[in-house]
Amino acid sequence: MKTQRANKLILLSMGDLCGIGPEVVAKAVAEPAPDLAAKLCVIGDVAVMRRAMDWAGVKLPLLSLSTLDEAETLPPGCVAVWQPEGMAADLLACPVGQIDARAGAAAALCIAAAVTAIQAGQADALVTAPIHKEALHAAGVGYPGHTEMLQAMAANGGEVAPVRMMLANQELRVVLVTIHCSLRQAIDLISLERVLETIRIAQRAMLNFGLKAPRIAVAGLNPHAGEGGLFGDEEIRHIAPAIARARAEGIDASGPYAPDTVFMRARDALGHAGEFDVVVAMTHDHGLIPVKYLGVEQGVNVSLGLPFVRTSPDHGTAFDLAGSGRADASSMKAALAMAASMLA
Amino acid sequence: MKTQRANKLILLSMGDLCGIGPEVVAKAVAEPAPDLAAKLCVIGDVAVMRRAMDWAGVKLPLLSLSTLDEAETLPPGCVAVWQPEGMAADLLACPVGQIDARAGAAAALCIAAAVTAIQAGQADALVTAPIHKEALHAAGVGYPGHTEMLQAMAANGGEVAPVRMMLANQELRVVLVTIHCSLRQAIDLISLERVLETIRIAQRAMLNFGLKAPRIAVAGLNPHAGEGGLFGDEEIRHIAPAIARARAEGIDASGPYAPDTVFMRARDALGHAGEFDVVVAMTHDHGLIPVKYLGVEQGVNVSLGLPFVRTSPDHGTAFDLAGSGRADASSMKAALAMAASMLA
Repeated sequence: MKTQRANKLILLSMGDLCGIGPEVVAKAVAEPAPDLAAKLCVIGDVAVMRRAMDWAGVKLPLLSLSTLDEAETLPPGCVAVWQPEGMAADLLACPVGQIDARAGAAAALCIAAAVTAIQAGQADALVTAPIHKEALHAAGVGYPGHTEMLQAMAANGGEVAPVRMMLANQELRVVLVTIHCSLRQAIDLISLERVLETIRIAQRAMLNFGLKAPRIAVAGLNPHAGEGGLFGDEEIRHIAPAIARARAEGIDASGPYAPDTVFMRARDALGHAGEFDVVVAMTHDHGLIPVKYLGVEQGVNVSLGLPFVRTSPDHGTAFDLAGSGRADASSMKAALAMAASMLA
Repeated sequence: MKTQRANKLILLSMGDLCGIGPEVVAKAVAEPAPDLAAKLCVIGDVAVMRRAMDWAGVKLPLLSLSTLDEAETLPPGCVAVWQPEGMAADLLACPVGQIDARAGAAAALCIAAAVTAIQAGQADALVTAPIHKEALHAAGVGYPGHTEMLQAMAANGGEVAPVRMMLANQELRVVLVTIHCSLRQAIDLISLERVLETIRIAQRAMLNFGLKAPRIAVAGLNPHAGEGGLFGDEEIRHIAPAIARARAEGIDASGPYAPDTVFMRARDALGHAGEFDVVVAMTHDHGLIPVKYLGVEQGVNVSLGLPFVRTSPDHGTAFDLAGSGRADASSMKAALAMAASMLA
């Protein structure tokens, strides 16, 4: 049952505490965009966050909440932290910049607590700091990453809904049909159903972003989008029929377009109006190469298809930078701004 | 036998006359970069080039050469055209913006004449305007594109040397291991030998460009460059061993790098010094997406591995724009400048 709250509340999970997660979270919460309408609360370990604020040079007071409901009356100019039950006591002993099972377990605990809070109506959105796959594994957590974990938690034991990764920066939005598998497996995964589902998920997301009639470009898989079957037939067998089905449903999807020019055409920048609002890309790297090309600082990862808003920065734990205070919080700030805009 | 000439001579083949080729050639020759040290001569049909200059608004006189040797004493401020023997008489009758066998035959004739001239030492480099694969096919020309035709002509009936496509703009150079085939076939084509040959070709090209110790980044094929074999093993089986072999030969090659960030890292722009001089990319679109992302106007295609310099713009015949005079000659001009810099 949703509680009645006057303000939207965005949770930020601290991520793997041996990486830069706590530091970029501290910086992002300490310097929110002036127009950010939501309240913010870190889900993490209080001692870890205090140390991270110190490393990051954040001089604000840390407000340790006993319940998330206290976030409703949060004063500005402080960093609110809610520490979930069951956090290990010795977390500051985890070696910074290294894989540690305790850090993996703490990261998973924060994510689970955040999802439970959102499902209970205590919060509205989740921004996740980076976790480390091997630390999760060392902690006995059976998910390779955030997306799979959130997908399973959202399903609550029921049927797992399809989730797609969207990468976005200020110029370009890309939704991926396939992600973390070999390129060969990605090709095998391309099917009418999977492409159509991705187009539908992209459509719903764009409508949620407030676009009235989203223009969805669908990239091909092969060079020149197959050149009429000469360079592969996935466009003919799967992608074009999926576009036709989507159009029959009233979605303004078009393509398949040659992968090498569709992202350039969709790019929306000063003096270059984008032809499309979002590009559906068949493979991880077709989509991520253009999003990251101009620098990863502004890139945001959005999980589409979950029953709640979830965003994250598009970088990893950066173990080599952890503890230095030099970690760039731009992407985390952009992820926070994206989550806020999706709640608006 | 090479003739003694005081000036370098760059030939520009007019391409498919039903497309924008003759127009962009006319514009590029009419407005050469002020520091362009070479002489220029169009290989094409005189009547077609006269019409193209008219469409393109080029007001300079057209100088019809009877032999290429006349280019040596070419005055500035004119467009020199050399019409090879055997050109059909009725070329202006070819319908603009359509596939026509006569246009295909004329395009092939110009390319062949240019190569013969270069092989005879009458000229130094070739810049090719776009041709149309189907027009070539209609003319009975058995090559799918420029590269294959030039490769065969350069071999002179002997062994065909490996040629690789390089795409370059002012920020990024990319050399492709595979090009015009399905993505599935491209994966099958990845081998230690093919990757190593590409690295060697890239190395020779960078040395020819005047770089003393080229930094060659080799991109992976799979997401995260395979994540240690979790997402595909081409990096382990083929790419990493090829890099090791190249390094043993004294080449500063490194990788395999994750495809989604290596191009961003190599990008050399104001305030962003590139970490590498060139990226070896496994697939057509991994390489072309970042080169084209900021706009195709400045992109240049360079054939590496031929016994002479050959460049071209990275756009096609653009049948829809032909005859309008609106075709953008930026890429053709960049191709001309690139050819000149490779002769310097």
